[in-house]
Amino acid sequence: MESLARTSKRVCPFVRANSAQTLRQMSHDSGLLAMAKHCPVMGPALAAEKHHFSTSTKPVQARAEGVATAAKVHAVENPAELESFKTNDKPFDYDAAVSEQLESKRKDHSYRYFNNINRLAKEFPKAHRAREDDKVMVWCSNDYLGMSKNQEVYETMVKTMQKYGVGSGGTRNIAGHNRHAINLETELAALHKKEAALVFSSCFVTNDSVLTLFGKKFPDGIIFSDELNHASMIVGIKNSRAKKHVFKHNDMKHLEQLLSLYPKSTPKLIAFESVYSMCGSVSPIEQICDLARKYGALTFLDEVHAVGMYGPHGAGVAEHMDFDAHLKTGVASPNYETVMDKVDLITGTLGKSFGVVGGYVAGSVNLMDWIRSYAPGFIFTTTLPPAVMAGLGTSIRIVRRNIDDRVNQQKNVRYVKEQFANLGIPVIPNPSHIIPLLVGNPTDCKKASDILLNKHKIYVQAINFPSVPAGTERLRITPSPHHGKEICDQLIAAVDDVWTSLDLKRVPDWEAFGGHCGVGAANHESSKPLWTDEELKLTNADLNPNVLDPLFQQLEVSSGIKL
Amino acid sequence: MESLARTSKRVCPFVRANSAQTLRQMSHDSGLLAMAKHCPVMGPALAAEKHHFSTSTKPVQARAEGVATAAKVHAVENPAELESFKTNDKPFDYDAAVSEQLESKRKDHSYRYFNNINRLAKEFPKAHRAREDDKVMVWCSNDYLGMSKNQEVYETMVKTMQKYGVGSGGTRNIAGHNRHAINLETELAALHKKEAALVFSSCFVTNDSVLTLFGKKFPDGIIFSDELNHASMIVGIKNSRAKKHVFKHNDMKHLEQLLSLYPKSTPKLIAFESVYSMCGSVSPIEQICDLARKYGALTFLDEVHAVGMYGPHGAGVAEHMDFDAHLKTGVASPNYETVMDKVDLITGTLGKSFGVVGGYVAGSVNLMDWIRSYAPGFIFTTTLPPAVMAGLGTSIRIVRRNIDDRVNQQKNVRYVKEQFANLGIPVIPNPSHIIPLLVGNPTDCKKASDILLNKHKIYVQAINFPSVPAGTERLRITPSPHHGKEICDQLIAAVDDVWTSLDLKRVPDWEAFGGHCGVGAANHESSKPLWTDEELKLTNADLNPNVLDPLFQQLEVSSGIKL
Repeated sequence: MESLARTSKRVCPFVRANSAQTLRQMSHDSGLLAMAKHCPVMGPALAAEKHHFSTSTKPVQARAEGVATAAKVHAVENPAELESFKTNDKPFDYDAAVSEQLESKRKDHSYRYFNNINRLAKEFPKAHRAREDDKVMVWCSNDYLGMSKNQEVYETMVKTMQKYGVGSGGTRNIAGHNRHAINLETELAALHKKEAALVFSSCFVTNDSVLTLFGKKFPDGIIFSDELNHASMIVGIKNSRAKKHVFKHNDMKHLEQLLSLYPKSTPKLIAFESVYSMCGSVSPIEQICDLARKYGALTFLDEVHAVGMYGPHGAGVAEHMDFDAHLKTGVASPNYETVMDKVDLITGTLGKSFGVVGGYVAGSVNLMDWIRSYAPGFIFTTTLPPAVMAGLGTSIRIVRRNIDDRVNQQKNVRYVKEQFANLGIPVIPNPSHIIPLLVGNPTDCKKASDILLNKHKIYVQAINFPSVPAGTERLRITPSPHHGKEICDQLIAAVDDVWTSLDLKRVPDWEAFGGHCGVGAANHESSKPLWTDEELKLTNADLNPNVLDPLFQQLEVSSGIKL
Repeated sequence: MESLARTSKRVCPFVRANSAQTLRQMSHDSGLLAMAKHCPVMGPALAAEKHHFSTSTKPVQARAEGVATAAKVHAVENPAELESFKTNDKPFDYDAAVSEQLESKRKDHSYRYFNNINRLAKEFPKAHRAREDDKVMVWCSNDYLGMSKNQEVYETMVKTMQKYGVGSGGTRNIAGHNRHAINLETELAALHKKEAALVFSSCFVTNDSVLTLFGKKFPDGIIFSDELNHASMIVGIKNSRAKKHVFKHNDMKHLEQLLSLYPKSTPKLIAFESVYSMCGSVSPIEQICDLARKYGALTFLDEVHAVGMYGPHGAGVAEHMDFDAHLKTGVASPNYETVMDKVDLITGTLGKSFGVVGGYVAGSVNLMDWIRSYAPGFIFTTTLPPAVMAGLGTSIRIVRRNIDDRVNQQKNVRYVKEQFANLGIPVIPNPSHIIPLLVGNPTDCKKASDILLNKHKIYVQAINFPSVPAGTERLRITPSPHHGKEICDQLIAAVDDVWTSLDLKRVPDWEAFGGHCGVGAANHESSKPLWTDEELKLTNADLNPNVLDPLFQQLEVSSGIKL
């Protein structure tokens, strides 16, 4: 047995990457067999010799889905065995230190196993796993509107690649600034009714770069950050080295208390999101902007999980706050100061509702020029490919005009939430499109996800610590406009089955427990849907036909291309 | 005049974004007219009324090429005018502070004006500017091998988009891990003969993430950084909060002096590049690795400006150091410890030689699993689109097999460097493919670039502070294998003309000056080309036919697709 284990370790990168203890644990709960099925070596072997194999008695070669590997004739030597030239003390053992840190992740259940999910454009929301015939229904993607499968976006990208190649070939300053970048930034500025916008590699980079810059350029500045802010903002705030205060989630009293500690003349920035992705809660944007104005702070709003889905044109929750006014005025601004106007900096993603990849910030020309001129994460990196930027231009225009998709998504969300409520499946209450099912511990959460995937062919990733606080582990479900009734009913039945088979807590159980994460507590105002019943009656025909920005039309004419 | 200026400011975002002083300055040196020609409003007007117009007497509406803008009915109010609720002190004036910081950039000539460059796949290395009929030859792109126009890469991307859509739809942990990521990481690991690799949004993010992680996870760790390291590494080192020592460029004595200050048991990391992009110098990789081993340090090598171009398979300078051994063994490792083996962490880009976008790190399974598990810049961001990753797989395979392209690039580089030498054009001496022409001040450097672009239709971006130290401003030229003799001769004549017309210093002038940046100094060993005369005789036929990794072939079979 020992020699077999040693052989496996030498041959198989998956076995090598895991401790004996982890492998033993995995073989007990049959996770090892599940992974082996997806190994390019073991998968076919298992399929062929099904009746000969059993996980507990045969050696297993599996391939880590998480870490891709290549055959290597000799490994990098262990630094602990390096020759000692100068001193007699031992060099630091990086390998051991790193292994220990990984082991601690396994112990606290935060070690991640990636699922190989290949989403199929023509069978949305289906994907295949490692084998093409092993198909699953995807219920946790952030391709919220299914724009990644949009035919017009695809065609724009193909046409752009044909003409302009597959890469930009440089940074914005050196050979990588082009009409695609200009047009996309114009489109984004118009979406948010701001003067200008800047495109980044991702919204992680955008948030990190902009927040870092604030701290670097205003060394006396103070950042006020919602406690549930995304990792990219937390990283940016840390990197900024600015003094920071974390305020309780959406707690205006606490925020004001903290703001009032400083004179109005001190530079301040309030960093917050519109829709918080793991619980689906929504921030009181206008109240935050009013406080910002009262105390002289800039507002930084991350609309990553809202753009495309809220507001009549999909500009996000800030647009949604003046729904009727924006609906009527189309691309023009309403003739009063809207909530969207009050926000100084809006960041968003190009990889979720808009379906491709990238991130951006929108705001005044002056602030954009400042970020463009000083943020290393914008300056010193290759521009996104022309085709990606052109495709995004098309995607944003389609999304702006497509209120039907927004309405249909919300209808699907309501349907699933209602059915879960009827079954006592514990949805963490919220007013948005996110459906977080409270499980409450990491082991059951992973098990529930695995059973959904392997038995029911439904993919919902388990969300464990550190993405959410320990004890609030959940399955996070995101219906798109294309998750119709039949697909929803499959999900609901499967989840009900999993809840029964694992004996997971339902709403009454959480009630008895005194409530948790809003589940089993009195239903409060904050879970009233953002999209009202009235708004759900709208169709594309109700949108002001003047959806395109006049400036943009002009650009299109002058550049001689129809994007 | 004043009321005209006010009108322009209201209507034109370009005018609004620039101070009156800057506009006045630009109108004197005719930059304003040049920009106006590219404005979608003014361009056609100027063309139509050519004989009526003169920059100095008419108001000009131009559009900033740097900051894209959209029409906006009412601007965000100036925070300085906010109502004062609580205190009587004035709020911080963000707008004024930002304007002041931008003004200082204009004053020290580090303010950037982006050139609108649309590189044409079918006319490589040509691009068009704002108007499609205004074509220029691009001489400064980092699409080093022209892979962005490769037909096979394009076809792979189209096929992949058809089947898998245009976006990944999630992070690696949530719905965004797929065969394309696995295959690309396998390909990259095989390229560098490492156990594993991880793909990031960009190499900026890779460098930042990995270096930051080292500092966070080893709080007593010390980073030793070459003084010419790229901004992404500097940012990462700063964000890591690790104690750092900057060693003189490529100075082994200085590095050793610094390393020897600490016991061997202290965690250390040496961060350096192989080819330094702004001067083309090359680091002594093996010597650095030997010092690292002597003093117990990890080695972190950025091969961004080397992958694709050095080594028999384009794995970079580290591969080039054991050229013959790697040439012979193909995908297998030579039977001794190579320089590439000695490096712990190799980072590279997918947006330069490989032609698309993205970045990566390669190393041991253990280190990759550690980065995968702990680096927020890897975890909390959308995976690159499947088509981008699949296209890159194809690109890397083509590049690995294509020694002809590497040889032809180097031949073009040699030709241009030789001709410049004959004309006394001051090339900063180096052993790589980078051709930096020393100008020595920002004003002439921008002028030289503008004349090349506007008169000669040749695009070479001016590289000013802070990308290079003040006083060493340069034009940075990057020949590809497709910049043939005719195109080279155009460049050489144009540069000669610009040098004459601006009366720029030639080699003898710098000699008289005592030499600068190696120009006009005695020609030293360090400028001997990395590619030897013998190596330049190689062709694709000399490559070991076994270029594909056996594991990868197996993956291909098991996944049932031919990428």
